[in-house]
Amino acid sequence: MELMNAKGTKDLMPKEKIVVDTLKSKLVDIFENYGFNPLETPLIEKIEVLSSKYAGGDGILKEIFKLEDQGGRKLGLRYDLTVPLCRVVGMNPNLKMPFKRYQMGKVFRDGPIKAGRYREFIQCDVDTVGSSSMLADAEFVAIARDFFKKIDVEIVTKVSNRKLLNGIIEEVKVSDSKKMKVILVIDKLEKQGIEVVKKELMDLGISDDRVCKIEEMISIKGSNSEKLEMIKKFVKNDEGLEGIKELEELANYLKLMNVENYEFDFSLARGLAYYTGTVFEVFAKKSKVASALAAGGRYDRMIADFLGRKDDIPALGISFGVSAIMDAVDFKENKKTVVQVYVIPIGTLDESVKIVNELRENGLKVDMDLMSRGVSKNLNYANSYGIPYAAIIGQKELEKKKINLRDMKTGKEELLSLQQVIKKLS
Amino acid sequence: MELMNAKGTKDLMPKEKIVVDTLKSKLVDIFENYGFNPLETPLIEKIEVLSSKYAGGDGILKEIFKLEDQGGRKLGLRYDLTVPLCRVVGMNPNLKMPFKRYQMGKVFRDGPIKAGRYREFIQCDVDTVGSSSMLADAEFVAIARDFFKKIDVEIVTKVSNRKLLNGIIEEVKVSDSKKMKVILVIDKLEKQGIEVVKKELMDLGISDDRVCKIEEMISIKGSNSEKLEMIKKFVKNDEGLEGIKELEELANYLKLMNVENYEFDFSLARGLAYYTGTVFEVFAKKSKVASALAAGGRYDRMIADFLGRKDDIPALGISFGVSAIMDAVDFKENKKTVVQVYVIPIGTLDESVKIVNELRENGLKVDMDLMSRGVSKNLNYANSYGIPYAAIIGQKELEKKKINLRDMKTGKEELLSLQQVIKKLS
Repeated sequence: MELMNAKGTKDLMPKEKIVVDTLKSKLVDIFENYGFNPLETPLIEKIEVLSSKYAGGDGILKEIFKLEDQGGRKLGLRYDLTVPLCRVVGMNPNLKMPFKRYQMGKVFRDGPIKAGRYREFIQCDVDTVGSSSMLADAEFVAIARDFFKKIDVEIVTKVSNRKLLNGIIEEVKVSDSKKMKVILVIDKLEKQGIEVVKKELMDLGISDDRVCKIEEMISIKGSNSEKLEMIKKFVKNDEGLEGIKELEELANYLKLMNVENYEFDFSLARGLAYYTGTVFEVFAKKSKVASALAAGGRYDRMIADFLGRKDDIPALGISFGVSAIMDAVDFKENKKTVVQVYVIPIGTLDESVKIVNELRENGLKVDMDLMSRGVSKNLNYANSYGIPYAAIIGQKELEKKKINLRDMKTGKEELLSLQQVIKKLS
Repeated sequence: MELMNAKGTKDLMPKEKIVVDTLKSKLVDIFENYGFNPLETPLIEKIEVLSSKYAGGDGILKEIFKLEDQGGRKLGLRYDLTVPLCRVVGMNPNLKMPFKRYQMGKVFRDGPIKAGRYREFIQCDVDTVGSSSMLADAEFVAIARDFFKKIDVEIVTKVSNRKLLNGIIEEVKVSDSKKMKVILVIDKLEKQGIEVVKKELMDLGISDDRVCKIEEMISIKGSNSEKLEMIKKFVKNDEGLEGIKELEELANYLKLMNVENYEFDFSLARGLAYYTGTVFEVFAKKSKVASALAAGGRYDRMIADFLGRKDDIPALGISFGVSAIMDAVDFKENKKTVVQVYVIPIGTLDESVKIVNELRENGLKVDMDLMSRGVSKNLNYANSYGIPYAAIIGQKELEKKKINLRDMKTGKEELLSLQQVIKKLS
């Protein structure tokens, strides 16, 4: 048997897992600060649920990992956390609104493997279901501000609104059948530049003067309030005006929350068809990573369409990309182990076991020699795992009721009492 | 479309998920105290890896959920966390020993559904690879002691040793081909009683007097040291004596660690064929749940057999059953939400947003009205989610620079400053 991971999957060895766990626990802290509760749905779902046409779109549906149980039931692995959220909302009609939940977990897509793209990867989603207030939208922009501040990554959140984008397109009279295609082209502005966008719009049969007008509207520069004033000069249709009003309300709430690191970008569309209002993408200011670290928006129709309901079920959320964040952040100072101190007995096994027991009772993360090795082999072991301290306990130390604590980086040794060790490492 | 979970799977709604997360985080604390690091392996594995005959045994192999990727590669969902550990050890030949890791995650078994048995469930495993020392074994008994103490569950850990059990069987001269069958029968003593065991042993063709001798040996009563003294009178073969010696060493380490809540039980076998030395099962003292809350043992051959190596790769671990623990523990006092306070503005939306922002900056878990509802509807909402406090902020409160903090259980209201609210809830 050849030992290998399944294609497109990978192990998180302790060193990487420690980073992922740290990021996840910081996300949880922020999500809970904003009043979101944890939810956990299964990784296996019925294929009917996963393949709803109101969910991820054709591209994703082709990438579902399919399976069957013993009873021949058609199942699949979830490809996102939004479809399970729709199902939970549908199955719990007595859920009080708004329902604010976060969920972190693996999702699966049987797609092509590129650099940094896996078939099994972590998603961290936080969503509010049931509120139409722009205050709900503002919370997500604030969550991004708080989280990236906490991990010391300077970001800017680009914000726009689908109603405004629809309004922009309406102003140049694009036929309904082409609207979604035009949106997808405009979405390429940031990555591919204006010339590509203009060419592709013309390819769609949009005339020169209308392409120029689109260019003018989606390239507006200035402060956030200047941008809003400018776009008002172009957009006069109802849907566009509603989008502008929503952005104004959002800006008002963000000001009250002291959120400053965001900017309006009217070219922002976010590919997925299901967005209906606010859309946002979070980028690192200084980073070789061009892709968004987090992104989301409002999707007021998706749950309703999914459940076959006529009235809107307002909803919105943001998804944090753990891999993108790990690539963007410098984890030089990252520890390779959770262990704080490694105890090495020299002919003092029984007493050392007692000391280790006491250190653990005091909440320290302690490992000790389980191989009856000599001091130098034990120091090599501690060193290879990056354990910051070794505690060497020989007969001499026992007599003095002390521990010889060695700083593994500097090699400096100190004779300390048990209490001093606990104090130093706590 | 009928909205349903896949058969044998279930959602953890916030109320249950909060309990699971609490248990998991307490387990993590203890595992790390004992120097174990986190590992995360994929949920999808190659079918070849999963179906190694040295892994779970025929019963489990039949229950693998199978799938295929786009390239026609044969894959499956993991059914435990031990097989992935074997793979990781095999794929990382430079791993320094001992390798101490914990892993928590979903595993999948496409088996029959009974009460409390799911097809997708959480496993929490902690294992040490590479050490033969009974000190490593003692750490797991101590981990069980520490964890259940932390969640206030009184337990007793039953401990035995496979070498001793083999020795017991050797004493009555059971043929090699029957040994494993006899072990599986003896393992039923606790649940089905001595009469069933005796009958089934006789069905296996073991003669009356030998059955009586087995009964005598596996039913020995007394203190742990008395039991060891007694069994020495019966068991004289090498393997049995080695088992006794290992139990004596284990008892010595447990004494040094002040672990008292364990007892030797020579009938304990733990079904799985791969155990080679110490075995243990943890039971709640007062509980309607008869099944073990945690269990494990030493499996010195499994990884080596898995990797096709002749020399032992000593290894052992314990697995905590989250569902069994949840059933055994009374979570009456369990909170239904992480939210500490729900803010209700009365005509003070903008100022309330600012106050909420400040409460969140101070680490509190705060939610606020996102629906522009009246006070009584908002109180109903807070109540339905079990949020302990509501903060009512009207014009009157703003003028006094106070917040009206309502205890949702007692209905008692207090006028407090922002700082007082932070202090009270932190």
